[in-house]
Amino acid sequence: MALSFEIARRSASSAARRGVVRTLHGDFQTPAFMPVGTRGTVKGVLPRDLAAVGAEICLGNTYHLMLRPGSAVVARLGGLHAFMNWARPILTDSGGYQAFSMADLNTVTDDGVRFRSIIDGSEVHLTPERAIQVQNELGADIIMAFDDCPPAGEPGSADHVAAEPDREPTADPRAQRAMKRDRVSDPAEHRMRVRLANERTVRWLERCRRAHARPAEQSLFGIVQGGTDPEQRSWSAERITAIDLPGYAIGGVAVGETTEQILAVVRHTAPLLPDGKPRYLMGVGYERDLLGAVRAGVDMFDCVLPTRNGRNANAFTPTGQIRLRNASFAEDPRPIQPGCDCPACTPGPDGRVFSRGYLRHLFQSGEMLGPMLVTLHNLRHFQRFMADVRATIDTDDWSGLIGRWPVAGTGLA
Amino acid sequence: MALSFEIARRSASSAARRGVVRTLHGDFQTPAFMPVGTRGTVKGVLPRDLAAVGAEICLGNTYHLMLRPGSAVVARLGGLHAFMNWARPILTDSGGYQAFSMADLNTVTDDGVRFRSIIDGSEVHLTPERAIQVQNELGADIIMAFDDCPPAGEPGSADHVAAEPDREPTADPRAQRAMKRDRVSDPAEHRMRVRLANERTVRWLERCRRAHARPAEQSLFGIVQGGTDPEQRSWSAERITAIDLPGYAIGGVAVGETTEQILAVVRHTAPLLPDGKPRYLMGVGYERDLLGAVRAGVDMFDCVLPTRNGRNANAFTPTGQIRLRNASFAEDPRPIQPGCDCPACTPGPDGRVFSRGYLRHLFQSGEMLGPMLVTLHNLRHFQRFMADVRATIDTDDWSGLIGRWPVAGTGLA
Repeated sequence: MALSFEIARRSASSAARRGVVRTLHGDFQTPAFMPVGTRGTVKGVLPRDLAAVGAEICLGNTYHLMLRPGSAVVARLGGLHAFMNWARPILTDSGGYQAFSMADLNTVTDDGVRFRSIIDGSEVHLTPERAIQVQNELGADIIMAFDDCPPAGEPGSADHVAAEPDREPTADPRAQRAMKRDRVSDPAEHRMRVRLANERTVRWLERCRRAHARPAEQSLFGIVQGGTDPEQRSWSAERITAIDLPGYAIGGVAVGETTEQILAVVRHTAPLLPDGKPRYLMGVGYERDLLGAVRAGVDMFDCVLPTRNGRNANAFTPTGQIRLRNASFAEDPRPIQPGCDCPACTPGPDGRVFSRGYLRHLFQSGEMLGPMLVTLHNLRHFQRFMADVRATIDTDDWSGLIGRWPVAGTGLA
Repeated sequence: MALSFEIARRSASSAARRGVVRTLHGDFQTPAFMPVGTRGTVKGVLPRDLAAVGAEICLGNTYHLMLRPGSAVVARLGGLHAFMNWARPILTDSGGYQAFSMADLNTVTDDGVRFRSIIDGSEVHLTPERAIQVQNELGADIIMAFDDCPPAGEPGSADHVAAEPDREPTADPRAQRAMKRDRVSDPAEHRMRVRLANERTVRWLERCRRAHARPAEQSLFGIVQGGTDPEQRSWSAERITAIDLPGYAIGGVAVGETTEQILAVVRHTAPLLPDGKPRYLMGVGYERDLLGAVRAGVDMFDCVLPTRNGRNANAFTPTGQIRLRNASFAEDPRPIQPGCDCPACTPGPDGRVFSRGYLRHLFQSGEMLGPMLVTLHNLRHFQRFMADVRATIDTDDWSGLIGRWPVAGTGLA
């Protein structure tokens, strides 16, 4: 077995569980937050520093790596672990989400998706077989099925749209425009499209499983789709989990839904997935979304929020995000968050820290060190949050947890 | 005394000396190479990592910091050491070099220089008194006199022009155009201008010394000018060193001269500076330039070559620079330099390194980690080179040193 999952403890008052996933590249504690390393690097972070802030697994994007440098090049350089010099577990997505998010440029058939490379304009044909072959060459510990991700039916809240898409889709702004234009407003038509995508996703999962050439080293996860429709989610969960795989994911909930919509889908879907296997909620999200999903029984998460927001001078704190470009911080001598143990906030031997005033100066001056430090802080913030969530699964003191993190709207109060 | 200098060992076969400079923020070994932290940060490098690659002192640019965030802001945040979270020694330049390199925008009088801010277009008046006041507010251990740096007389070699200006003058490309347009081709007129600048530099040094408000904490260095004319250099050295200061610099040799011209000026000027005080060659340079100057008796250097070239994918090695964007490195599994102990080349516990193929991918993809890693490598390269130079002062085995570094053209073979 390339992967095993052991549940160490269950919450008495919710479906949350604490455990460990074991892979050939080491273990990671669950519930786990996976930083996103789109192009074979978590932007602005050395792998040793990624490990130091507590990340035990990270994510790579098949779409970006297949276009540049190409999975064959990565394979000849020893696979993605060696390529990016990260010895711990890695998960790769299938590339489907990115291929679909460029809807005005692609052609989707039952065979797969044809689209133009954003690197050189060449035509790329991504099929279930090709998505798995690329992921076999990349060599991640967990690989994802190639799924048909239908567009969202209803626009989400402003604050989710701002963070969308939570997984990095592409450097091309056309992608986001396409996602918006492609929304289907007629409910009946939308249901039909979700159903067709659901059926195709099941057919494609079978093809993925057959194409998977390294099951002894890499664990293929299936993805449940179905949008925000409970019936479609139930149908998808039944058909996807009928195919025996080491783990399952909930997809299609990071494309503009509100916290309430995400939580409703997750609460409905998570219990439909096998209890003894890891459950992965793709592309989510804010602390409140993570907490709600953990309490519904989800074990794994990925999101670009800490890294993308860090590069944009938005720092996560226990009381919410602060915008370090704000002029009010120009002479603020405090660190982002006093008491935080990240490289940006930890005082040195001389008691000094990186002040908010200094960080603002770095962003105002376009200096790399600003994004580097705030990214490290934000990654540490999410790892500390997940560690607290794991500890709370043991104690069941959820109200204590809620007082320590910005999770208003979780529906637990 | 804010600074003391102790010479521990002298080369038997040259004027080189090994020593230590002691400041209130700690010591640094000489000959020393100072990385450049223009805007209060060595671009892309955390201070802890700057220390880890061996830097014991770094440089800040008065011109940039006075315009943004302003020296008063830096002072209110505890001074430049606290601001940039660097507990070790710092040297600041006077801002004059940058003010003068924007010659088409400034007005120079005996009082000082007027120019427009590159940040907001406002008029800035930089005088000897103001340059010292700003440096007093920044609080570096070593501060530099405000000098009149005349334009070079003759264009330098292509390879020096490519690296010019070695100290970061400004983000504005007009500066380099101005430097070139401003060259004086008539020898008599050029001599006159150098003489007038020399005389003004002496008058300004007296004003700097009178304006200096923190001599117990900060050490003011005078700057010898004089272009490539030995007589002017002699005149300047005599007048500048007649003013008793903790150290002296050789300025005006990183504005386009060839290695031979730099070496000729340094060999002529260094012996004219007091033996018992640190000698600082400003803005130089390549390994061969450093070596030649060390052998002429110079103790301190600064240059943006390791950082600027690192950001441009040019990595220094014992056999010269390699361009990591070159397609020939696309599948090269080797580190930049096998055996190098920098964070980019050192194998991890699993024996892995950052390959040249991976580094090329990072640069091709515009990923921050590429500049970060190659900058660390290049900084370590220069620190390892200087450590070897210091060791060679003890052994006098210069031919051994020459075999280990790319110093062809040093004139020692």
